[in-house]
Amino acid sequence: MKTKDPNKAERTRQFIIEKSASIFNKKGIAGTSLSDLTEATGLTKGSIYGNFKDKDEVAVCVFQYNVDNLISYLTRAIDKENSSIDKLLAIPKAYRKLYKTMIAYGGCPILNTAAEADDTHQVLCRMTVDAIGTMKKTICRLIESGKQADELNNATDTDTMAEVVICLIEGGSLLSKTTGEKTYMMNSLNQIEALIQSAVSAK
Amino acid sequence: MKTKDPNKAERTRQFIIEKSASIFNKKGIAGTSLSDLTEATGLTKGSIYGNFKDKDEVAVCVFQYNVDNLISYLTRAIDKENSSIDKLLAIPKAYRKLYKTMIAYGGCPILNTAAEADDTHQVLCRMTVDAIGTMKKTICRLIESGKQADELNNATDTDTMAEVVICLIEGGSLLSKTTGEKTYMMNSLNQIEALIQSAVSAK
Repeated sequence: MKTKDPNKAERTRQFIIEKSASIFNKKGIAGTSLSDLTEATGLTKGSIYGNFKDKDEVAVCVFQYNVDNLISYLTRAIDKENSSIDKLLAIPKAYRKLYKTMIAYGGCPILNTAAEADDTHQVLCRMTVDAIGTMKKTICRLIESGKQADELNNATDTDTMAEVVICLIEGGSLLSKTTGEKTYMMNSLNQIEALIQSAVSAK
Repeated sequence: MKTKDPNKAERTRQFIIEKSASIFNKKGIAGTSLSDLTEATGLTKGSIYGNFKDKDEVAVCVFQYNVDNLISYLTRAIDKENSSIDKLLAIPKAYRKLYKTMIAYGGCPILNTAAEADDTHQVLCRMTVDAIGTMKKTICRLIESGKQADELNNATDTDTMAEVVICLIEGGSLLSKTTGEKTYMMNSLNQIEALIQSAVSAK
């Protein structure tokens, strides 16, 4: 006797999201076609549209999936460290490790979606702003803890430092991805480490 | 008597390029439709395809037009200054002045095209790499002149500094454009100025 599986629809949706995640990241939302999705999943057009309202709904779920993966990767790297300085340094370190995988994946999903969506997709635009906000809050929290623990100089401007760190990460990702030159990302990460070190308080 | 104007075709092409430049920059290549182009130019589909092979050819010409404008704007700003340090500082200064216009225009065209084209359009991808190469060469040349004139510390790594400057400009543009917060770009430009100042040789 066949039992009806209430989770099957959710599993199919998840399967479609995972299989199409790198395609959307590489080709963009406008550039990804329905046939890209049927090809990547091996499913029919009907099956995809039976699980998602339209291509945009897949794109939204894919973006959330990509961001969740990135944030949890960074969170794990930060959580492994003890001091605030080491937690901050864990961010450029994590991007060094992630570099090759991220380039093969089509670059940073936040950056790719931000560049495409800012003038076209309101929902995705809000989601990229939220993702950037999460990154910024995480970095600000670490800087503030460092200042409270006297690890970082109290004169450090928390917001400024956090924003420059994010600009260097996203700028480095974009330039390295585009030119194929690893040095842009590595020089950006070195610069982030130098910024953190220059904020270390002289005890 | 009507005389045949050999430059009319070229003028029409230029008209189409100028009228569609900001649309491609905002919507991307895949996201720009033929009806966007007919609407922006007031021309018919036939007239556009009588002057360009396809949408991609318009996109390529538009990108070159946008890059030429940006590079000549920066070159004029640099040429106004005398010392190498002032010429270097003219770059963040020029971006401060350009900021509002660039945001209204849909952000930095190099960044937008780089993010979209790197996995999809070979010709545009090569053109973005060339545009980045031009920016890098210009900055490297100024740093080298500064070192030779003893204005900048000889220990300054020319390539590293040039790449970090470009990453900060592109990262700042992207983050400010996406979040609507001017501070990302301004903090990046401040950081570039601090980098230049920290390389000034102690005479």
